[in-house]
Amino acid sequence: MEDAAARFAGIVGDRNLLTGDQVSEDYAHDESLTCDPRKPAHVAKPATAEEVAALLVAAAEHDVPVTARGSGSGLSGGARPRADGLVISFERMNAVLEVDTANQVAVVQPGVTLAELDAKTSAVGLAYTVYPGELSASIGGNVGTNAGGMRAVKYGVTRHNILGLQAVLPTGEIIRTGGKTSKVSTGYDLTQLIIGSEGTLALATEVIVKLYPRLAHSATLLAPFGDLTQVMEAVPVLLASGLAPNILEYIDNLTMAAITYHEQLSLGVPEEIQQATQAYLVVGLENRDGDRLDGDAGRAGELLAELGATDVYVLDGGSARKLIEAREKAFWTAKAAGADDVIDVVVPRSEMPGFLAKARELALAAEAGAVGCGHAGDGNVHLAIFCKDPDKRHRLLHDIFAAGIACGGAISGEHGIGQAKRQHFVDLEDPAKLALMRRIKQAFDPTDILNPGVLF
Amino acid sequence: MEDAAARFAGIVGDRNLLTGDQVSEDYAHDESLTCDPRKPAHVAKPATAEEVAALLVAAAEHDVPVTARGSGSGLSGGARPRADGLVISFERMNAVLEVDTANQVAVVQPGVTLAELDAKTSAVGLAYTVYPGELSASIGGNVGTNAGGMRAVKYGVTRHNILGLQAVLPTGEIIRTGGKTSKVSTGYDLTQLIIGSEGTLALATEVIVKLYPRLAHSATLLAPFGDLTQVMEAVPVLLASGLAPNILEYIDNLTMAAITYHEQLSLGVPEEIQQATQAYLVVGLENRDGDRLDGDAGRAGELLAELGATDVYVLDGGSARKLIEAREKAFWTAKAAGADDVIDVVVPRSEMPGFLAKARELALAAEAGAVGCGHAGDGNVHLAIFCKDPDKRHRLLHDIFAAGIACGGAISGEHGIGQAKRQHFVDLEDPAKLALMRRIKQAFDPTDILNPGVLF
Ligand SMILES: Cc1cc2nc3c(=O)[nH]c(=O)nc-3n(C[C@H](O)[C@H](O)[C@H](O)COP(=O)(O)OP(=O)(O)OC[C@H]3O[C@@H](n4cnc5c(N)ncnc54)[C@H](O)[C@@H]3O)c2cc1C
Ligand SMILES: Cc1cc2nc3c(=O)[nH]c(=O)nc-3n(C[C@H](O)[C@H](O)[C@H](O)COP(=O)(O)OP(=O)(O)OC[C@H]3O[C@@H](n4cnc5c(N)ncnc54)[C@H](O)[C@@H]3O)c2cc1C
Repeated sequence: MEDAAARFAGIVGDRNLLTGDQVSEDYAHDESLTCDPRKPAHVAKPATAEEVAALLVAAAEHDVPVTARGSGSGLSGGARPRADGLVISFERMNAVLEVDTANQVAVVQPGVTLAELDAKTSAVGLAYTVYPGELSASIGGNVGTNAGGMRAVKYGVTRHNILGLQAVLPTGEIIRTGGKTSKVSTGYDLTQLIIGSEGTLALATEVIVKLYPRLAHSATLLAPFGDLTQVMEAVPVLLASGLAPNILEYIDNLTMAAITYHEQLSLGVPEEIQQATQAYLVVGLENRDGDRLDGDAGRAGELLAELGATDVYVLDGGSARKLIEAREKAFWTAKAAGADDVIDVVVPRSEMPGFLAKARELALAAEAGAVGCGHAGDGNVHLAIFCKDPDKRHRLLHDIFAAGIACGGAISGEHGIGQAKRQHFVDLEDPAKLALMRRIKQAFDPTDILNPGVLF
Repeated sequence: MEDAAARFAGIVGDRNLLTGDQVSEDYAHDESLTCDPRKPAHVAKPATAEEVAALLVAAAEHDVPVTARGSGSGLSGGARPRADGLVISFERMNAVLEVDTANQVAVVQPGVTLAELDAKTSAVGLAYTVYPGELSASIGGNVGTNAGGMRAVKYGVTRHNILGLQAVLPTGEIIRTGGKTSKVSTGYDLTQLIIGSEGTLALATEVIVKLYPRLAHSATLLAPFGDLTQVMEAVPVLLASGLAPNILEYIDNLTMAAITYHEQLSLGVPEEIQQATQAYLVVGLENRDGDRLDGDAGRAGELLAELGATDVYVLDGGSARKLIEAREKAFWTAKAAGADDVIDVVVPRSEMPGFLAKARELALAAEAGAVGCGHAGDGNVHLAIFCKDPDKRHRLLHDIFAAGIACGGAISGEHGIGQAKRQHFVDLEDPAKLALMRRIKQAFDPTDILNPGVLF
């Protein structure tokens, strides 16, 4: 049998296969704070689905585990490879193949970044509305993690915005699922099964995404509250109002201080109000009509005041953009501040105050810190965990995840399980569901070649 | 071994098990026009998930195939039982367990009908926005078929509006998937896999549905067009306008004549315009604000005129409701007119004119009829097929389905495959996908107890 590297090089060409020392540090990790970098034996950069299929067949024959990689911005170690493994990097499959205005869809290769897709769709007045904080993330990676982000409160997460895939099965078969249609009831929904499977079931080689009209007018409101619980109670009221906010984020006072300091951002909130604030609510509104937007912003301001906001600031375009960007970069701020992990438990919205209280109580008891922000409209809490000792941190995370599950939630709302939270998932998930998921994995990947050690 | 009937009766109680002659004709069929009624050996009416689980275990031991039944309003024979089989009817599991306004969700048992849920949610100003034409349909049945309906153009289909399930696996295990959260990235999405699986993977015993604010104001516009292609070309323009119609239906002239006659409905369209019309577009708009609605209706009217509508009628509330109801009942009209089948191919919206032309050409060549209406905003074409000869009809349907697939579409947008379209699905679907779906089926249902003969 030919050696594995030669076989892979034969498929993608010598220039597109890195082996041994040619493999740079970049491919050894994603952005998870807890998974040590681990260089893979090989990195292949295929150009077509056929090359991906041939790589999977060759990898299976050579018993080389395969990890798909988009931009490596994941936060759960899903793209962290095995030392003996092959990374399939989609960096060369980065074309926006089509922006189809009649059907309001785009067809893209998996390596396309959110920023690139946004540029292409804005040119025709449409938008791909999934906006996880990191715009260098790839669409393929978003499919892998079922990425969310701030606008999910209005438009849903990746799962709700992908209509079809071309995907390569671990057996080397290339299938197409879904299509340019918004619905289908013709057999099991393989699109949905692959989305969120973190590269363990199949590799997406083409993605059909749904586009929405880009609304011309937007406004951002910032409302400080003296009490976190009031913020949480405001959320369902705003959602029931019919104002359809496209952003509904909470930022606790510590996190707000950190991100505004880190980004040198002044929002015009007077010092004494900042002092009396426990958390902020950020409300984004949009409309195709400027007058309607003004009306909505006025109404939202009234509602926020009724709901207990100390004040309401309608941010000008520049400040608004900067605040949203700073919020998107909260992860980097947390990292710079020495956070030991960032997690994203999701709970029913109404459970957020209870869950946050519990998480803080657990952190306090462990002499650790837990501060954050989150997609309040989705019940998705992003907590930066400050706890140096790995064993203590493991126990603390276990308890926080268990508390989230006890509230009717789940370990991760949008970052995925990856390798970082694998043990917690296995420990906390219903064994009947784990066993079923393993049987599904087996149905796709009988030789367990795709991302072993991720998820379970 | 005890006899099967005694075993089932022991689980649900004698009163809730029908056997042999006790089984009424009702349980022998759904509303599919092509599946002959077939009485099952047993009908059990469980009251709890535990009873459902015990029934599945018993059925597996006695090798009795099981068919779940909601309201039996399905159009593909998915709930048509096996002669030696057990029907699990969810008619007693029909409670709305909770309408949770803070989280904007309802938790319901599977036997709850759409009409019942609508009554409960309207009381608190919320709405479950999935409205397939038949309001006697059950939520469990909607999960089975991934039901769509007219409002899917704005709110999506069942798949987009179910957040979680309690489900019983064929092994008798009871699992909970998803939850009251709008997103989750914690393992494979079992909720989505079960939705649309037509009772072949697991039985839903509790369903968490998403609710939206019920908007107070609505308007319905009716626009006749001289040319079907113009109707189809109007659709993407209306969708790109940002008016966010919640209904976007086309009705061809023959179907309009039939439904208005059948429902004794007068819409005020003058005779000479009717004569010159090839198809109608029905546009529904809604808003929480009456003035905004009026503005939107005006704008939609202008757009329709620009797009070639012969005229635009803003229907008053009564006529609008009647037209929508008549459209919902188009199936009964077609049945009364002697239709031999009703199908619901879905294609990318832009392909509708081409697909419809092709379908008519195929029907003409087969000396058959193909007329209809459909969810134009979704590319979902409902065609009534008039063709008495079963073999000829089978060939015609094969060709129409193949034409839909060639346009980038699928056999069914919302009715499912069931038994009625099983052979076509098996003949036309990619064998690699069929094999994968069969392996997934095996992962859930190793003894093939759930709805054998449905799907594949
Ligand atoms: C500053 C910052 C902010 C962030 N904010 C958010 C946020 O708001 N919301 C959110 O959801 N995430 C957020 N993230 C996380 C990250 O951006 C997302 O997880 C994103 O989906 C990862 O995309 P990627 O291309 O970097 O994927 P990678 O990290 O390369 O891979 C992610 C997973 O997908 C798999 N994968 C990659 N390509 C494919 C493919 N073609 N087919 C199948 N599987 C594949 C990988 O194997 C891996 O399991 C943030 C990250 C950072 C650094
Ligand atoms: C006049 C008319 C108009 C219609 N209009 C539309 C429309 O616009 N859009 C649309 O999508 N459909 C429409 N339909 C079809 C029908 O209403 C839907 O298919 C509906 O989802 C069926 O629900 P049911 O409760 O009657 O299900 P049933 O017919 O009883 O069952 C449907 C399928 O679901 C399975 N099932 C039932 N309960 C469960 C459960 N608890 N767990 C798992 N599987 C289960 C069954 O085994 C079967 O495969 C229409 C039907 C009629 C008669």
